[in-house]
Amino acid sequence: MNTHVPMGPGKEFDAVRALLAQWGSAAQGVGDDGAILDVPTGSRLVVSTDSTVEDVHFRRTWLSAEEVGWRATQAALSDLAAMGAAPLGVLLALTVPAPWRVELAGLAEGIAAATRTVGAPIVGGDVTDGDRLALTITVLGHASRPTSRAGARVGDTLYVTGRLGGPGAALAAWEAGALPRPAHRLRFARPAARVAAGQWLAAHGVTAAIDLSDGLAGDVAHLAAASGVRCVIDLGAIPCVAEVSVAEALASGEEYELLVAAPALDARAFAAAHEGLDLTAIGRVESGSGEVRAEREGRPATMPVTHDHFAG
Amino acid sequence: MNTHVPMGPGKEFDAVRALLAQWGSAAQGVGDDGAILDVPTGSRLVVSTDSTVEDVHFRRTWLSAEEVGWRATQAALSDLAAMGAAPLGVLLALTVPAPWRVELAGLAEGIAAATRTVGAPIVGGDVTDGDRLALTITVLGHASRPTSRAGARVGDTLYVTGRLGGPGAALAAWEAGALPRPAHRLRFARPAARVAAGQWLAAHGVTAAIDLSDGLAGDVAHLAAASGVRCVIDLGAIPCVAEVSVAEALASGEEYELLVAAPALDARAFAAAHEGLDLTAIGRVESGSGEVRAEREGRPATMPVTHDHFAG
Repeated sequence: MNTHVPMGPGKEFDAVRALLAQWGSAAQGVGDDGAILDVPTGSRLVVSTDSTVEDVHFRRTWLSAEEVGWRATQAALSDLAAMGAAPLGVLLALTVPAPWRVELAGLAEGIAAATRTVGAPIVGGDVTDGDRLALTITVLGHASRPTSRAGARVGDTLYVTGRLGGPGAALAAWEAGALPRPAHRLRFARPAARVAAGQWLAAHGVTAAIDLSDGLAGDVAHLAAASGVRCVIDLGAIPCVAEVSVAEALASGEEYELLVAAPALDARAFAAAHEGLDLTAIGRVESGSGEVRAEREGRPATMPVTHDHFAG
Repeated sequence: MNTHVPMGPGKEFDAVRALLAQWGSAAQGVGDDGAILDVPTGSRLVVSTDSTVEDVHFRRTWLSAEEVGWRATQAALSDLAAMGAAPLGVLLALTVPAPWRVELAGLAEGIAAATRTVGAPIVGGDVTDGDRLALTITVLGHASRPTSRAGARVGDTLYVTGRLGGPGAALAAWEAGALPRPAHRLRFARPAARVAAGQWLAAHGVTAAIDLSDGLAGDVAHLAAASGVRCVIDLGAIPCVAEVSVAEALASGEEYELLVAAPALDARAFAAAHEGLDLTAIGRVESGSGEVRAEREGRPATMPVTHDHFAG
């Protein structure tokens, strides 16, 4: 059921009515002051909000409107994936400048397509004028025991999902005025939040998890700091996409893959449950106080410098 | 307890650490991929997201940074008030252009002061670069039976809280290049979401509620459309602030007062429970199909034209 609350007259509400007509069953119960959701008994609510801003996170010439909507939504959903949460719903706050209004249907289609992949209805939102496109997406989910960044234990193994470096390589190509390789571009333009994987991992003994939004080097530092441990990364074990170096893979942000710590995980069973998605052991957790060390073939190595920008 | 999850190094995270230090107990459990909240058993989750954008909702010269933060937060909380929900927490997505960075502490103080008035901790957020200040605030609350816009019944009386017209009068003065009267300016700069009032009203038989963000004339049309009824407004009964006409009060948006329908409410008991806040009967609900009618001294009257802008 996607019964919405009827709205009164007004141009703004005509825009909302048009979006609801386009979304069909992807939107549910929109039109009241607040959306109403039910968190299953015994579950905790998990929420996160994430902004994607034109010229901060992407440039207009890089992506179609549909890709902008898809990518922003998957980026937000990725936080639920990290927490091992099942999605309940999505709230949108869109700032749409005049030149983007003709693209609103494309944006809306990308957003809805992304929410459909995880079965999370669009339950509310806000459309505002402005001079730069911005999508702030709030995701709501639930989990009986949400996975934190803070639970890694000494002796755990560190794993990542997927293969890294694609988004960073695409970004580097665009910034150099070149066209990225299609496979790299696709990883930037069409990321997939690892929502089902996050729930599988939570059910299989993961002690800590974080999504790779800042890049592996930065995010492993967050996990180490949060857990109060030392993380040791085997540089030779990092799974990279084709034509990307380990240093580039470590610095590549907006991957939306997961980094997890666990006593032991069955990578084959994981792949079988997730259409062949890789789960690769890349290091271990030692006693420490929030630091990260790199090694290669069992010997200490230097960790490449990480990407750091204000926007995150 | 306001235990946050420690974060790794990075300029962006230094900014977050500074905010958390400033907020103290106003922020709780920040630093994981998602925030975790518990919805009391038997309660439903109520969520809403609301954006405030510079030069769309306010101009920089009108408000202090602290007032911008306060106003944006109260505007978002107002949706919980309308639903009769008790606040659980607040998520922030801030787009902060370079000229505003020196004002970040002021913005943060206004946001925290507003959340403290309702006892809702800041549980997470996102800070992004951009060229126009924007605050997207997501509010989470709970209610056993949230109040919808859609429940008004034939025979109900319509009531509004407070006195209307202040924000519209302040806006009109600024747009004419004048200084607003201090009382009008205060209603624009320092609105108060009627959160406690909304819960009181829900507990006293209210059948439908909406917050006055578009202005009484626009919002009564939403309530009528949502409930599938005719709303009749007595123009002579509308409570106006000093120096404001009924037409101006009807068109004044961003009031953040509540319009409710109920069989009967005790305005004196309401005022006693809410520091003298007015609750005024302004009309009635009749059989109809979403329309609004005005009358004055029992005779049909013309409803003044409403304010309508894209931003809402």
